Amino acid sequence: MNLILLDPAEVTSDGTVTLRDGRARHLLTVLEVTTNQEVRVGLLDGPAGTGRVLAAADGAVILACSFGDTPLEPPVDLLLALPRPKVLHRLWAQFAALGVGRIVLTNAARVERQYFDTHVLDERVYRPLLIEGLQQARDTRVPRVSIHRQFRILVEDDLETLCPGTARLLADPSGELAIGRALSGAGGSRVLLAVGPEGGWNAFEHNLLLAHGFRTVAIGSRPLRSDTACIALLALVHESLRAT
Amino acid sequence: MNLILLDPAEVTSDGTVTLRDGRARHLLTVLEVTTNQEVRVGLLDGPAGTGRVLAAADGAVILACSFGDTPLEPPVDLLLALPRPKVLHRLWAQFAALGVGRIVLTNAARVERQYFDTHVLDERVYRPLLIEGLQQARDTRVPRVSIHRQFRILVEDDLETLCPGTARLLADPSGELAIGRALSGAGGSRVLLAVGPEGGWNAFEHNLLLAHGFRTVAIGSRPLRSDTACIALLALVHESLRAT
Repeated sequence: MNLILLDPAEVTSDGTVTLRDGRARHLLTVLEVTTNQEVRVGLLDGPAGTGRVLAAADGAVILACSFGDTPLEPPVDLLLALPRPKVLHRLWAQFAALGVGRIVLTNAARVERQYFDTHVLDERVYRPLLIEGLQQARDTRVPRVSIHRQFRILVEDDLETLCPGTARLLADPSGELAIGRALSGAGGSRVLLAVGPEGGWNAFEHNLLLAHGFRTVAIGSRPLRSDTACIALLALVHESLRAT
Repeated sequence: MNLILLDPAEVTSDGTVTLRDGRARHLLTVLEVTTNQEVRVGLLDGPAGTGRVLAAADGAVILACSFGDTPLEPPVDLLLALPRPKVLHRLWAQFAALGVGRIVLTNAARVERQYFDTHVLDERVYRPLLIEGLQQARDTRVPRVSIHRQFRILVEDDLETLCPGTARLLADPSGELAIGRALSGAGGSRVLLAVGPEGGWNAFEHNLLLAHGFRTVAIGSRPLRSDTACIALLALVHESLRAT
């Protein structure tokens, strides 16, 4: 936990907050904070700042907070064919840590129907995992999540509203264009990265994405599991955007 | 499973192999192979090739194999402070899938001692996980693994023997040099990537690595969990080597 995230409703008008949950335990037992020590804090979807320890005892920590700038939204959105629940459960925190503005989960021919009935698509399950990832990466902006059961309607009608004005990349073993090259000169623009299911998009889906502005990019010749691929690709897109 | 890996001892002198284990089940129930169908095969630490289905029934598959070239060893080695056992368990297959020649696991000040007593450091546990990753990524070369309890002796005395002639990179939040820039012009050379424990290398360790030829590289400003960082960094190094 490299930053303590606070709900705005937790913070009093004079800027103090009293923690008694896992965040207090982390401050007391891992960071072993003492009075007047300063720790990084942030408001959910708001500014980051500093919390000065006013008191730390009996399982509770009281912080006096001051806030600065709100982090920018990460410049990458993710269009992801719904992975297996166990895999998705592991990915939520990693998405938030790597930095994703919006996570668009979609059906696809090679997505099994029962994947949609899982509790890992319940916001009460995934929101704490997203927050865990943000606290790891010192971010405050919770990725926005939407779930789409109809791929064609999503791509044809909804994607431009959800992710307007993005450079669109489709990672595929058939791709030959390196991500860095695809994004050279794209500095300042947002990127929407599409990652298919295990086994890939089918031909219809692939062509529909190409017809809606996605460019196929390469990620080497080694087929990766979709969770490994997601992390690798998000890292490559972020690195390429930093380089431009 | 994008390639079926075979132990050389399983293959008869006329090039046939009879499978009855998880590989047979995969061929029968996932790929639903039929007679004369060809599937990708490979010999452990040897050539990749093709297996033609001679028979597929009753839980067994007989393949007639022919082999071609042996894949090159991946051009990246990893020096990794021993992660938590649960994390390492998840990483083995992903390391093999992303492509690592050698995995050098080391102690460090911020590695907990009991991490060394785990069954995930037992070759009987990790080798099947490495093979799972190779079968995902269509590789045959099993990463070599060594485990070192004395960081200083490893870095001062053993590392050059284990990983000779590599460009040495140290990923650290303090780094400012992009991996792509650090490796520009490094085409053809091997890379040794050092990834620290949760909480980072301490000052002694950091300086010892710098004194032994490691250059600090950046990976953005977001602190990542070590498993996420490993995957992201391996992807970035591979991509940079492909680009040079």
